Amino acid sequence: MYGALNADKSNAVLVCHALNASHHVAGYYADDRQNIGWWDNLIGPGKPLDTNRFCVIGVNNLGGCFGSTGPSSINPATRKPWGADFPVVTVEDWVTTQARLADQLGIQRFAAIIGGSLGAMQALSWTIQFPERIGHAIVIACAPNLSAQNIAFNEVARLAIITDPDFHAGHYYEHGVRPTRGLRVARMVGHITYLSDDEMASKFGRQLRYGKLGYTFGVEFEIESYLRHQAEKFSGYFDANTYLRITKALDYFDPAADHGGNLSLALEPATASFLVISFTTDWRFSPERSREIVKALLDNRRDVAYAEIEAPHGHDAFLLDDPRYHRLIAAYFARIANRVVT
Amino acid sequence: MYGALNADKSNAVLVCHALNASHHVAGYYADDRQNIGWWDNLIGPGKPLDTNRFCVIGVNNLGGCFGSTGPSSINPATRKPWGADFPVVTVEDWVTTQARLADQLGIQRFAAIIGGSLGAMQALSWTIQFPERIGHAIVIACAPNLSAQNIAFNEVARLAIITDPDFHAGHYYEHGVRPTRGLRVARMVGHITYLSDDEMASKFGRQLRYGKLGYTFGVEFEIESYLRHQAEKFSGYFDANTYLRITKALDYFDPAADHGGNLSLALEPATASFLVISFTTDWRFSPERSREIVKALLDNRRDVAYAEIEAPHGHDAFLLDDPRYHRLIAAYFARIANRVVT
Repeated sequence: MYGALNADKSNAVLVCHALNASHHVAGYYADDRQNIGWWDNLIGPGKPLDTNRFCVIGVNNLGGCFGSTGPSSINPATRKPWGADFPVVTVEDWVTTQARLADQLGIQRFAAIIGGSLGAMQALSWTIQFPERIGHAIVIACAPNLSAQNIAFNEVARLAIITDPDFHAGHYYEHGVRPTRGLRVARMVGHITYLSDDEMASKFGRQLRYGKLGYTFGVEFEIESYLRHQAEKFSGYFDANTYLRITKALDYFDPAADHGGNLSLALEPATASFLVISFTTDWRFSPERSREIVKALLDNRRDVAYAEIEAPHGHDAFLLDDPRYHRLIAAYFARIANRVVT
Repeated sequence: MYGALNADKSNAVLVCHALNASHHVAGYYADDRQNIGWWDNLIGPGKPLDTNRFCVIGVNNLGGCFGSTGPSSINPATRKPWGADFPVVTVEDWVTTQARLADQLGIQRFAAIIGGSLGAMQALSWTIQFPERIGHAIVIACAPNLSAQNIAFNEVARLAIITDPDFHAGHYYEHGVRPTRGLRVARMVGHITYLSDDEMASKFGRQLRYGKLGYTFGVEFEIESYLRHQAEKFSGYFDANTYLRITKALDYFDPAADHGGNLSLALEPATASFLVISFTTDWRFSPERSREIVKALLDNRRDVAYAEIEAPHGHDAFLLDDPRYHRLIAAYFARIANRVVT
């Protein structure tokens, strides 16, 4: 929690996280000033999502590995880690648990719920599952469901993890090992899809790591070095069973599926106001996919603002502090604040 | 060899293969009629590359696993398979070996050299390495070098193979195993980049394999089933050490590198006539990359025809029999035939 809940508890903003993030959305830890929240550029006192005016709540989703109950937690029935026995969870499950948390906190209705990517899917699902409990949905770099190509990349990542001999059918905790090889490959595949082709070209291009080619299978190009480093870091702290479940939650999300594929019907219950944002170079969840959401909302004559931000950074743009993007979020929250905060 | 070499040996056409293809470019084997050449739709009597008029030569590149000397061949010094000790090979090396083959066959000059993707890189390199020995270069779905994103995907594939415990640092032959897990992942990553997003969407979309979700880590969507099947098949016949080397040859190819990144300078020696073809939905080697080649040729006032074919199939389009594409190739070869064949 960041900022103070006002008297009528009308200034709460829920931040839903994406694949590898957590409740730690802003600020740094007192004992570790390098450990900065994943959306710290957006959230804080005087920032676009201003904690002087809003009470911002970060959560850890069920099945995660940053404090919430997950596959590495102890299964009370066996007194061993859940491992493969931890259930598959869906976006809808997460939203349900978030609503229970709101009950505990006495928050009847969120002023806004915000998220990017998989986090945005949760914000979107809130508007369908609990329409009366959300004032504004800020849906960033989202898609109404994964495309075949999106699923395909997730499946590569899963196959890499599942076929790692250290995976032990999901019960690796008991063997004192971790499927880090699979996690590395999974992270590398994911990472490529988060960046735009252009961004990679301008950041790395064909730059050599050591000035000349070595004609070996070690690192030759800067891009290889970067990806290996990212993969190494990620495989050191992330839980493979969590990764598997989160990619599955992404695959499953498809609110239109229960309505014969009609997203407009699926979004009929939604009463929230919407801010939908996409980024021009995001090829994972392209602007076209955001426009599907906007169209479905307009079909229902909902209050929706849509912005397509020209940004070079691909899907990861939602995490960066592009000035146009942040000014938009700031203006939108200022408008909400002027209405709800006393 | 398909078709007959004419008296002055002026009707020879060399076909360079891409990643997982071979010398078997057309026709089927007498004892296995299902085993059809990889470019059989393009090459044969009366086909766009007409073997009634041209003598078509298919090769296996050095380092391959379909008959040429490669990592699984016996190293005479150790009497064991080369394995990791087999050298890294480059596009330029392959072109040099192909020129030696031409020497053996008494072919001084190819009427044309044709290839798609990595095969096209060889055709392009021919025009620089042996400009006087090639009349026409048909360069399809090519790029003048790999982008950072291209290299990144190759690196994922390599990491999957190299970290497979059955890889044994490249000496798996001696252990009686094969790094099939890594090969599967490598093939899946590759396959995704060969197809367009749209093609995957229209072919598979979000279709379920078994009619409903199982909430398991088995196959749920048709796209998963398709990719797993392709990966399984590929990992059963392809050699991992060859895969590693071929992806490296792709990474290294960059004729402009020796000219300060100036492709126009690199192509200055080329005297061949060029047909350059790209496909609109190819995001691996996009039309923009082919246009770089065309621009560099025009800078040198070379004879170049360029076609951007509107096709939904992504990079794989070069292997398919799109009528506009094949009509173009047929017309181009008819023009060559009218000049060279007696």
